[in-house]
Amino acid sequence: MHLYDVRDKTVVVVDILRATSCMVTAFAHGVESITPIASLEECRNMKTRGYVISGERDGKKVEGFDKGNSPFEYVGDQVRGLKIAFTTTNGTLAIEKSKDAKEIVIGSFLNLTSVAKHLLLGENNALIVCAGWKGRVNLEDTLFAGALVDKLKDYLGPDCDAPLAARYLYNLAKEDMISFLNTSSHVLRLNKLNIHEDIKFCVAMDQFKVLPKLKNGTLVVN
Amino acid sequence: MHLYDVRDKTVVVVDILRATSCMVTAFAHGVESITPIASLEECRNMKTRGYVISGERDGKKVEGFDKGNSPFEYVGDQVRGLKIAFTTTNGTLAIEKSKDAKEIVIGSFLNLTSVAKHLLLGENNALIVCAGWKGRVNLEDTLFAGALVDKLKDYLGPDCDAPLAARYLYNLAKEDMISFLNTSSHVLRLNKLNIHEDIKFCVAMDQFKVLPKLKNGTLVVN
Repeated sequence: MHLYDVRDKTVVVVDILRATSCMVTAFAHGVESITPIASLEECRNMKTRGYVISGERDGKKVEGFDKGNSPFEYVGDQVRGLKIAFTTTNGTLAIEKSKDAKEIVIGSFLNLTSVAKHLLLGENNALIVCAGWKGRVNLEDTLFAGALVDKLKDYLGPDCDAPLAARYLYNLAKEDMISFLNTSSHVLRLNKLNIHEDIKFCVAMDQFKVLPKLKNGTLVVN
Repeated sequence: MHLYDVRDKTVVVVDILRATSCMVTAFAHGVESITPIASLEECRNMKTRGYVISGERDGKKVEGFDKGNSPFEYVGDQVRGLKIAFTTTNGTLAIEKSKDAKEIVIGSFLNLTSVAKHLLLGENNALIVCAGWKGRVNLEDTLFAGALVDKLKDYLGPDCDAPLAARYLYNLAKEDMISFLNTSSHVLRLNKLNIHEDIKFCVAMDQFKVLPKLKNGTLVVN
């Protein structure tokens, strides 16, 4: 991140497994707002202010929290109208690191086309911030970046070879993304937590048309 | 780099186009030592101390320097025994950033198998530092990383998905690396400087068996 000047850019934050997939799913089911919070304690304190508190550390739900990091916790009528405070290992940190951006939007395979359209209609340069895993590269976020670059390739040019590399990887993976991801470090890590259904859910393309945007520190869709 | 603790690691520094390819070529032709220097001025001063001064900025040879950054300047009998002071846009900076490593070696396609053998025979963890272009990702260094990971895959495990991604890219590119690289930002940049022959030279595998190592701030092979 320190290599990029984000001030003139629309930053697309992506944490496919599973923070940004959860966020997109939640908004598609009528959640009112999601406030990303970096620390566990700060998030816990939001409970007294009328927020549903959601949190994950190292892939596991946080004790005492209302919700964890599975997209299936953010579907159905019961989430409609909720204000959620959300803290995760990588996703909320990526949002925090992007805070000086001109605009921050939330990306996932679930709302890929909505993100692409937004970037095409806007005038800003774009930076895709892959949350990764504890500061390291992961495959699933890179594949999302590749899918997005693939959609935009006739309109936007790359600033280095990273978008190109991501697009090659996406084209290699796209026919069977789940098998491809089965070799990745993060999926191997999450396999231990039995979340195959979550992974399947998170790599489905264009399930929802919402585009969460950060406004005054809180994600909203309107 | 700031995400990795290099103190317990053998760092392989790579700048395929063209710093580390030049270094490997130079040692294969009998150069005695190469001292990487970060700044242009400092490098210029080495001239008075009996060094041949080599330098490149933005892909171009530096005015007043003895040699530039083309591997063809480092072949033949006339380089035997030379002590070279070398400064480049990205390669020498990558060495500087790796300075706390347990060991630093120089990698290129030209000495790929020598690097792989060294890592297999050693006991250190390994980090491949792709010099990139001004701090950004480039394809050619990533492909080298992928080729090295491919050789080591049965012996060393990855710490994140970056080695895996690099290996996928290498396997996609290996049948025709030159065509693959023709789409990369750096090759497009260098094309303007008419260095097609350099690129062809730099992607040839295992031409030399030398393994330059940093000792007291200077690269040597013995």
